[in-house]
Amino acid sequence: MTDRFSFALHATDGAARTGAISTPRGTIRTPAFMPVGTAATVKAMLPDSVAATGADILLGNTYHLMLRPGAERVARLGGLHSFMNWDRPILTDSGGFQVMSLADLRRLTEEGVTFRSHVDGSKHFLSPETSMEIQRLLGSDIVMAFDECPALPADEARVAESMRLSMRWAERSKAAFGDRPGHALFGIQQGGVTRELRQESAEALTRIGFDGYAVGGLAVGEGQEAMFGVLDYAPGMLPADRPRYLMGVGKPDDIVGAVKRGIDMMDCVLPSRSGRTGQAWTRRGQVNLRNARHADDPRPLDEACTCPACRGYSRAYLHHVVRAKEMIAGMLLTWHNLHYYQELMAGMRDAIAAGRFAAFEAEFHAARAAGDIEPV
Amino acid sequence: MTDRFSFALHATDGAARTGAISTPRGTIRTPAFMPVGTAATVKAMLPDSVAATGADILLGNTYHLMLRPGAERVARLGGLHSFMNWDRPILTDSGGFQVMSLADLRRLTEEGVTFRSHVDGSKHFLSPETSMEIQRLLGSDIVMAFDECPALPADEARVAESMRLSMRWAERSKAAFGDRPGHALFGIQQGGVTRELRQESAEALTRIGFDGYAVGGLAVGEGQEAMFGVLDYAPGMLPADRPRYLMGVGKPDDIVGAVKRGIDMMDCVLPSRSGRTGQAWTRRGQVNLRNARHADDPRPLDEACTCPACRGYSRAYLHHVVRAKEMIAGMLLTWHNLHYYQELMAGMRDAIAAGRFAAFEAEFHAARAAGDIEPV
Repeated sequence: MTDRFSFALHATDGAARTGAISTPRGTIRTPAFMPVGTAATVKAMLPDSVAATGADILLGNTYHLMLRPGAERVARLGGLHSFMNWDRPILTDSGGFQVMSLADLRRLTEEGVTFRSHVDGSKHFLSPETSMEIQRLLGSDIVMAFDECPALPADEARVAESMRLSMRWAERSKAAFGDRPGHALFGIQQGGVTRELRQESAEALTRIGFDGYAVGGLAVGEGQEAMFGVLDYAPGMLPADRPRYLMGVGKPDDIVGAVKRGIDMMDCVLPSRSGRTGQAWTRRGQVNLRNARHADDPRPLDEACTCPACRGYSRAYLHHVVRAKEMIAGMLLTWHNLHYYQELMAGMRDAIAAGRFAAFEAEFHAARAAGDIEPV
Repeated sequence: MTDRFSFALHATDGAARTGAISTPRGTIRTPAFMPVGTAATVKAMLPDSVAATGADILLGNTYHLMLRPGAERVARLGGLHSFMNWDRPILTDSGGFQVMSLADLRRLTEEGVTFRSHVDGSKHFLSPETSMEIQRLLGSDIVMAFDECPALPADEARVAESMRLSMRWAERSKAAFGDRPGHALFGIQQGGVTRELRQESAEALTRIGFDGYAVGGLAVGEGQEAMFGVLDYAPGMLPADRPRYLMGVGKPDDIVGAVKRGIDMMDCVLPSRSGRTGQAWTRRGQVNLRNARHADDPRPLDEACTCPACRGYSRAYLHHVVRAKEMIAGMLLTWHNLHYYQELMAGMRDAIAAGRFAAFEAEFHAARAAGDIEPV
């Protein structure tokens, strides 16, 4: 344990890196996958179970929490960790991305974004200053700068303008964050799929100086090839001695490709969302448990997996509870998916430390090609 | 452990009894509350968590399981215990009660009941013989005789006719059940709220001879006073050396009143169903977590309760996740409710063993009268 936020790089293998982020609330082994706990819960999971999958940190959504139950309320109740019974680190996003997706419900100015709540229609305002204050009230360990993020594909001029606004907001975020020992502030690189804009953004952020840097504005519709194209250069533009966080990614093959390109942290709703719709992610690809071919199958989802769903149940059972819309279906499949994601991260950390990431990546793709993949 | 089914009475206090049912799959401490696992899952709970609440046995529903996933399928997959990952005893109902509630969808004859599935409209037939076969395929430890159960209030002639049909079906159930060491068959007393019919039914069942006896046909609309009126005499008509099971009961005060009157086993969906709608049962009565008065309340649901919901969370958190319709709301409140029910049973077992059931009952009612009860 430490009373400061710090990052130590332990090994690299090509562009891939493994290390550890130290925080007063615990260590985050990198590359790290952060399950998403949008509304102060990782859906269908108890916090002890999330920890049991191997998660060192989870993500909370500022937008959702400020609307319900409200950041002041969470602060009065002792902060988000105590509120949701999770004592390990929490990263909160800035609310920027989710507010942008409201489209008609928002109004953007240099000062910030005015929007209406999807819960009750009430009017709210988010800016670098209010986002920093809300994330402080929540008690977040890793605070994200407030940014704007256009959906892709987008006009390059629009992307450049948006990136520059985000850089001005990054500076205001830093000033508003102030000096909070033990807490970290991450800047967010923007610039779409344009290398020069990514470079300009990285330089602006580095000048301001952050505890970590996110690659933002990806996984917003550009496709894996374009995303990897950006990741071939964007992480290398960011300071090597700080953690690099790719926001909102992704499928297992996205994650392996991102780590290969120098990403240290990721988050995504996919493993938990998939789990609630009968979809499982395994070493061998995606499995749709709704499919009738599982109805009489006595085998576990993955015979090599040690999660409770695979140790305790047949595919036939999982199929049954998915079809019967029983809550246990979402509970077991979310657990499995989060367990698989964490095993994937642990496998990559070990491979990078041993200098065999290329072999790991080849095995990863071979296992998926070998079978048990079905169209979904 | 034992290879036979047996019941030992350890102590009585007035009409109340405490003892233990021994089965090859484990011991059931009585009075016992059986959580309901309708479709091969206690809704919102993992089996380990059900066991952690203190449940020695759970109930499965023949009607639901025969329709989905199907009894033959469950048998091919190794039986219900293995299928649902619960290695302790399971009691299955006969399907009779649920088929009766289908009303228009069924046709009743001396032979049995023809009905249509609520899942897919397919046609099915249940009789004493098919019910015994289905419960055998499921691998149930305690099998219930197939009976008919009219809703109350009902015409006494209709109740008598129905009871006599159930007694003929009880005889056929016994014959079809055969000799299955380690498995038990329970007969079901009928007769509505008419003492003479209850006596006639008890005599018919005792003549046939069962491993245990249920008091059936209550908790079907007659009200607590009428139910207690029947329980003042009905259990005493049944053999004292066999367990007595009151089907489908109930609220905590129903349960205390039933144990007081000589009941050894009960089941009810109430604690799990309530948990999924934001309702908690505590020593102090029912608490509706949807209520806005909990929004800022940092206290646990019950400061004396050791369940995960009460140890880890505030009322404010529970209120938040109920309002946000998060799955964890149902998971935590179901756990709490089942934990509370099992603590209530344990408290009654201890009180009966110590000869202080009257004091226990007085404390139970005093705690509820003292507060934290709100209208629902």
